Amino acid sequence: MRVLVLGGDGFCGWPTSLYLSDRGHDVTIIDNLSRRKIDVELEVGSLTPIRPTSERLHAWREVSGRDIGFISLDLATEYDRLVTVLTELRPEAIIHFAEQRAAPYSMRNTHAKRYTVDNNVRATHNLLTALVATGVDASLVHLGTMGVYGYGWSGSAPIPEGYLTVKVPTPDGEIEREILHPANPGSVYHMTKTLDQLMFAFYAKNDGLRITDLHQGIVWGTQTDQTIRDERLINRFDYDGDYGTVLNRFLMQAAIGHPLTVHGTGGQTRAFIHIRDTVRCIEIAVTNPPENGDRVRVLNQMTECHRLLDLAKMIADTMGAEIAYLPNPRREAEENELIVRNDQFLALGLNPTTLSEGLLEEGKEVAARYKDRADVTKIVARSVWRAGMETSEDLLKELPAS
Amino acid sequence: MRVLVLGGDGFCGWPTSLYLSDRGHDVTIIDNLSRRKIDVELEVGSLTPIRPTSERLHAWREVSGRDIGFISLDLATEYDRLVTVLTELRPEAIIHFAEQRAAPYSMRNTHAKRYTVDNNVRATHNLLTALVATGVDASLVHLGTMGVYGYGWSGSAPIPEGYLTVKVPTPDGEIEREILHPANPGSVYHMTKTLDQLMFAFYAKNDGLRITDLHQGIVWGTQTDQTIRDERLINRFDYDGDYGTVLNRFLMQAAIGHPLTVHGTGGQTRAFIHIRDTVRCIEIAVTNPPENGDRVRVLNQMTECHRLLDLAKMIADTMGAEIAYLPNPRREAEENELIVRNDQFLALGLNPTTLSEGLLEEGKEVAARYKDRADVTKIVARSVWRAGMETSEDLLKELPAS
Repeated sequence: MRVLVLGGDGFCGWPTSLYLSDRGHDVTIIDNLSRRKIDVELEVGSLTPIRPTSERLHAWREVSGRDIGFISLDLATEYDRLVTVLTELRPEAIIHFAEQRAAPYSMRNTHAKRYTVDNNVRATHNLLTALVATGVDASLVHLGTMGVYGYGWSGSAPIPEGYLTVKVPTPDGEIEREILHPANPGSVYHMTKTLDQLMFAFYAKNDGLRITDLHQGIVWGTQTDQTIRDERLINRFDYDGDYGTVLNRFLMQAAIGHPLTVHGTGGQTRAFIHIRDTVRCIEIAVTNPPENGDRVRVLNQMTECHRLLDLAKMIADTMGAEIAYLPNPRREAEENELIVRNDQFLALGLNPTTLSEGLLEEGKEVAARYKDRADVTKIVARSVWRAGMETSEDLLKELPAS
Repeated sequence: MRVLVLGGDGFCGWPTSLYLSDRGHDVTIIDNLSRRKIDVELEVGSLTPIRPTSERLHAWREVSGRDIGFISLDLATEYDRLVTVLTELRPEAIIHFAEQRAAPYSMRNTHAKRYTVDNNVRATHNLLTALVATGVDASLVHLGTMGVYGYGWSGSAPIPEGYLTVKVPTPDGEIEREILHPANPGSVYHMTKTLDQLMFAFYAKNDGLRITDLHQGIVWGTQTDQTIRDERLINRFDYDGDYGTVLNRFLMQAAIGHPLTVHGTGGQTRAFIHIRDTVRCIEIAVTNPPENGDRVRVLNQMTECHRLLDLAKMIADTMGAEIAYLPNPRREAEENELIVRNDQFLALGLNPTTLSEGLLEEGKEVAARYKDRADVTKIVARSVWRAGMETSEDLLKELPAS
């Protein structure tokens, strides 16, 4: 299948591109390298030594004998070039990762809020209009987030896959209606994913575009069966306060002897998925597209739920780390329950990779191998959700001798 | 009250600015004159001879003795200047009309779709972030549309004011939740107003911004007690296929002897409001702001509902016009019921102006007085909602001698 991967140089995009190429698909990456440029802006970098894109692609050719195309293009601002690419490549599937994806970064300052909205909304809308204008009948798979649902809204009810059947009062009684699950985003980043949902719904209804929206949990893990084949293929590992996600951050903190940073009580329950399952889910979504005329298909892309404090304690116990309770820069409930439906991916053949010592060990090893690359002053989150909120002190520690 | 009117040169913005000035408020208009520039692009103009902005403001000073400030500024692209204006003027209220507001224009072509999204989303989001960044505690009143609700979704149930109480199933029974009424936009333009809703909800929740979203019906009428005081103050009257709205278009068509153009069966029922009530509603919203910490207040800004064919027949009968049934360029239900709640404006003192012969007569007179300015080739709608839809033939008629 001819597949275009937008944002194919990023943390999810890169292993997805390799996985699809390995599985025999004809992959072209579009990326403007914005993620690498934000590293420059934040004066931080991947813990793992990711290589320049051209070196990655060259290494993949050596290792696999397969070519992946690469086009440097900014979706948000280079609409005409996007049209040309679609017309020339005529992809059968498009995977859209090309959005600013960190909640803390999106709340960092006015510039970052505006960049997140401008980039994400325009990237998505340019893509949708370009598909309509060119008549390219590619199915579109978009990476959304579990965060569109908010947390705790439905009490003990499981979070459904995108749509919710509710009863609406009428003068004569009540009627049942299926609605898009109400949005309750916790950051500007999450908000952009709720805007995407409405744009997808409109273009699916009006123009018959075939769209799958994947509401993904927090990704953990670094390597896949493809990225591990050569160090030049290694995937990103973010540990900084803006882009580092919670489970990977705990593993890295434990590996370098930094306290595990828990924001608030740690009573927040979140959905997780390993990067190996992310790439599998993407292929399942790509090879099982909706029909023209279908509504947007929403799949919850997660495999298990955990309370953050339980994860911290488990890692602290097995790896001998301390836990530091920091003020929570986010505006969110201190505690919530979370049950999530993921029936559709299970029915389509996903065999979930769940939290296990072996995989935690792999994460610990990655963190330990590259710990000298870490800048410990970047670990603690700096973004606050609202002016005047408390921020955390640095938790500098002397690193154990490497 | 110091009031900033964004888009204050437009069809609703101009009479609102005059009304608020007349009522003693201290008004400053921000406008980038995009509406006048789109007239240039479409090679069409207001049926009424609207004057340049500076002449309008000069005339208002002569007539009323009152000054209205004017700043030429593009909200979507001139963020830094917006911050400067907010900091210097420190408005107590901001009225946000500064969005591309025609559904047919928003579906006209790829450029217009992209312009509508880029302009409307960025104008709204720049304004929200600028309010947060400057700490200016102005209440924000935004002009939304009844179209965010879609039509026919709730059957015979009245459309509530923004929020809907529904029952959600849980493992133990069901729970009641109040949700933002599900969005079902009928065009890219309407879609942008649903995106606005989610941005408003986030910034009200996260930053305590005080926001009122007015879901307005179709506006009819041209003049208010202020615009009628001098011909140089006259309001716009749009009759073209993109910007002309239905009731004003019927009046103008009848006045020049053009058949009344009904799209589809005419069974569509829509909500209406006279421009005189629009300006009153805006002042009511401005002088009754929500509190910091409140959710977004949503008011339905309409006074009555009519089936389009009934309006056409009434005008055809009283003014002696024919009705022409044209293919419907929109994707919408042929017929729908519509009952709308507007309890909040009634409770706040709105005394509705409803469809009456006197007001129809005024519209007919405006149309008759300026009919020689009409370009009859621009009357029929050209935009189609989806590639391949049927378009209407021109309905050229020799105009009766004036």
